[in-house]
Amino acid sequence: LESAPIDEAAETPTERDFDYNRTVALSDGVFAIALTLLILNVAHPGGGSFGDRVSDVAPALGAYALSFAVIGMLWMRHHALWRDMRRIDGRLVTLNLVYLGLIAFIPYPTGLLSDQGDVSFSVVVYAATLSLTAFVAAGTRVYCSRRGLLKPGSISASEAASRPFIVAGVFAISIPIAFVSPSAAEWTWLLLLVFGVRRRRLTGR
Amino acid sequence: LESAPIDEAAETPTERDFDYNRTVALSDGVFAIALTLLILNVAHPGGGSFGDRVSDVAPALGAYALSFAVIGMLWMRHHALWRDMRRIDGRLVTLNLVYLGLIAFIPYPTGLLSDQGDVSFSVVVYAATLSLTAFVAAGTRVYCSRRGLLKPGSISASEAASRPFIVAGVFAISIPIAFVSPSAAEWTWLLLLVFGVRRRRLTGR
Amino acid sequence: LESAPIDEAAETPTERDFDYNRTVALSDGVFAIALTLLILNVAHPGGGSFGDRVSDVAPALGAYALSFAVIGMLWMRHHALWRDMRRIDGRLVTLNLVYLGLIAFIPYPTGLLSDQGDVSFSVVVYAATLSLTAFVAAGTRVYCSRRGLLKPGSISASEAASRPFIVAGVFAISIPIAFVSPSAAEWTWLLLLVFGVRRRRLTGR
Amino acid sequence: LESAPIDEAAETPTERDFDYNRTVALSDGVFAIALTLLILNVAHPGGGSFGDRVSDVAPALGAYALSFAVIGMLWMRHHALWRDMRRIDGRLVTLNLVYLGLIAFIPYPTGLLSDQGDVSFSVVVYAATLSLTAFVAAGTRVYCSRRGLLKPGSISASEAASRPFIVAGVFAISIPIAFVSPSAAEWTWLLLLVFGVRRRRLTGR
Repeated sequence: LESAPIDEAAETPTERDFDYNRTVALSDGVFAIALTLLILNVAHPGGGSFGDRVSDVAPALGAYALSFAVIGMLWMRHHALWRDMRRIDGRLVTLNLVYLGLIAFIPYPTGLLSDQGDVSFSVVVYAATLSLTAFVAAGTRVYCSRRGLLKPGSISASEAASRPFIVAGVFAISIPIAFVSPSAAEWTWLLLLVFGVRRRRLTGR
Repeated sequence: LESAPIDEAAETPTERDFDYNRTVALSDGVFAIALTLLILNVAHPGGGSFGDRVSDVAPALGAYALSFAVIGMLWMRHHALWRDMRRIDGRLVTLNLVYLGLIAFIPYPTGLLSDQGDVSFSVVVYAATLSLTAFVAAGTRVYCSRRGLLKPGSISASEAASRPFIVAGVFAISIPIAFVSPSAAEWTWLLLLVFGVRRRRLTGR
Repeated sequence: LESAPIDEAAETPTERDFDYNRTVALSDGVFAIALTLLILNVAHPGGGSFGDRVSDVAPALGAYALSFAVIGMLWMRHHALWRDMRRIDGRLVTLNLVYLGLIAFIPYPTGLLSDQGDVSFSVVVYAATLSLTAFVAAGTRVYCSRRGLLKPGSISASEAASRPFIVAGVFAISIPIAFVSPSAAEWTWLLLLVFGVRRRRLTGR
Repeated sequence: LESAPIDEAAETPTERDFDYNRTVALSDGVFAIALTLLILNVAHPGGGSFGDRVSDVAPALGAYALSFAVIGMLWMRHHALWRDMRRIDGRLVTLNLVYLGLIAFIPYPTGLLSDQGDVSFSVVVYAATLSLTAFVAAGTRVYCSRRGLLKPGSISASEAASRPFIVAGVFAISIPIAFVSPSAAEWTWLLLLVFGVRRRRLTGR
C-alpha cells in the first residue's frame, strides 16, 4: 500500500546491516514456523486395529515428510542466496515478503494432501503453490543479479536461476495432469529427483 | 502491573544494545508468527466440483493475501522506525508491546473475514483493529520524536506520522459504513491504494 | 533425564557468549510464540445481532488482553534479570527451561478463562499457573544472586525478588477464594494493580 | 531434491559465520515453536465436578510436562554439540534438518498420548519418534567427529554419542512392550532416569 521504507541512498553501513539482519531474522522465523506448523495437519487416527491406525495416518505422514523436505530445501537455497548478498533494496524486501507469503502458505496445501489427497483440487493447489514459490525464487535471483545486489564472483544468475525454473516447470506441468489423475501428477514430481541426481553427477555438487 | 524495568539512567552502551536487540528480536518473532498463523484461518473446502471448491476457499485466500500484505507492510514500517532509533526507554518498550498485541490480534479478524465476511461484525472488527494499530504506530513515532529517541536527521515526526494517521482515518471511516454495507466498507479500504500511489508520484518514493 | 551439558569450568568467554545468546534467543522465541498463540483462544462468535456477537466474544477478548499484558510484563522482567547476568551455569539453564514451560503453558488457562470463565476450575488453574510462574521467577533471581551470577551493583536479591513473591502470594490467595466464587477471585487480582501503583509512588520508579 | 548449497571450499570466515548463525537461528526457532505448540494438545475438560475436570486433563498435563522436559533436554544437548562445532558442511546442515523434522514432529505423538494414551499405537509412535530422534542425534555427533568438524579437545565421539544411543535403545526396547501393554512401556522409560542418575554419580556431572 505504500512505497518500501528502505531507502538505500541514505544508508550507512550500520543501517545496511540492520536492514539485512532483520530481513534475515524475519525470514528464518517464517521458515521455522512454517516447518513446525506442518505437524498440525496430521490428524489423530480413528479407532480400529494398529494396522487401521497406521493406514489412517500414513498419507498425512507422507505429506508431512514431503513438505518438511521441500521447505527445508527452500530454506537452504534462501540461505545460499542471502549469503551472496552485498546490499539490499526496498524492492528486494518486498519480493522477499511475497516469497515468505508463499512459504507460510505451504502448510495449507500440505493439509489438503493429508486429508483429501485423492481429489484434483488438492494436488492442483499443492503443485501451483510450489510452482509459484520456485518461480518467485528464480525471479528474485534474477532481480538481485540485474541490480548488482550480489557479491562479485557469485554464481551467475542464469546458472543459479535455472534450477528453480526447472522446479517451477515440473510443478506447472503436473497441474493439467492432476485434473485427469491426481496420483499421476504426484508421480510427475519424482522427475525432480531424477534431475537433481543427474545434475549432481554431472557437476559434482 | 509494574513500572517498566528499563531504567535509562543506569545504562551503559552495552546494556542499551541488549535492551534494543531483545526488543527487536521479540518484535520480529511476533511479526513472523502472526504472518505464519494466518494460514490456519483458511479452512479446507467442502465437497463438490473443482469450481465449487475454488469458490469455497476464495474469500479465505483473499483475506490471507490481504492480511499478509498488511502485516508485511507494518513490519517494513516498524523496521524503518527502529532503524532510526538512537535509544529506547521503558515507556517505548511498553508502547511497543501494546503494538505487538495488536499485530498478534490481526489473525483473528482475518479469520472472521474468511468465515463470515458478509456480516457487519467481521468487517467492523477488522477495520477497528487496523485503525487502532495504525493509530498506535503513529503515536509511537510521535512519542519517540518528542522524547528525542530518534537519531538526528531522521524524518520529522509530523511527516512520518501522517501516513499511519491517514491509514487510521480511512479504516475508522469504514466502520460506520460497515454497519450499512460490509462490502461497501471493504471498497473504502481501496482508498489507501489511491493515497499510496498519489503520494509516490508526488514525492518520488 | 541427564545432567546439564553446560560445564562452566571449561568455558572460554566466547563459549559463555554462545550459551548466553542461545538461551536468550530460545527464551525470546518462547515468549513471542506464547504471546501470539493467545489469539487462537478467541473463538468466532455464533450468530445473532451485532450486540450478541460482541457479548459472545467479550470474555475471550478480555482474557486475551489480560494474558498478553501478563506475558509482556514477565518478558520485561526476564529481560531485566538477564541484562544483569554476568555468567550462567547449567542449573540456571534448567531453571529457565522450567520457567519457559510455565510461560508456554499460559495460553491454556487463558483459553479456559475465555470459554469457561465462570467455573472454579478455570480460575484456579489460571491463578495457580501465574502463582507458580512468579514463584519460579523469584526463585531464579534468588539462585542467581546466591551463586554470584549477577553483575556487581545489580539490584539486591531480596529487593528484586520481593515483587514476584508478592505476585505469587496474591495469586495463591485467590485460589481458595475461587472455589467459593470465581469472580471474587478475579477481583482479588486487582490488588496487584494497587500494590504496583503504591510502590511506584513510594520509590519513584 | 538437490545437493546442499553450502560449499565449504568457497567459504571465507564471514560466510562460515553466516551459515553457522542462520543454522543455529533456524534450530532455535524450531525448538522454541515445538516447545510452545505442545500446549495445543491439552484439551479443555468436559463438565462435571472439580475433581472430574482434574482427572480429565491430568494425562494431557503429564504428556505436556514429559515432552517439554524431553525437548528442553534435547535443546541443551543440541546446544552443547553446536558449541563445539568448528565448521559446518552441507551434509551436516541436511542432517540437522532431518533432526529438526523429528523435533517438530514430537507434538504429534504427545497429542496421541494426551488423547489416546491407553492404546498401543500412541505409545509406539511416541517411543519410535524419540528413539529415532536420539539415534539421529548420536549419528550427527559421530558424523561431526569423523569429518573433523568439532573443535580440538571436544568430548570424544564415542563418549558423547553413548548417551543418545542408550536413549535410542531404551525407547526401541519399549516398542515391542507397548504392543503387549502400553503402560508397561511407559514404565520402561523410567529406566532413563536410573541411567541418568547413576551416570551423574559415577562421573560427577
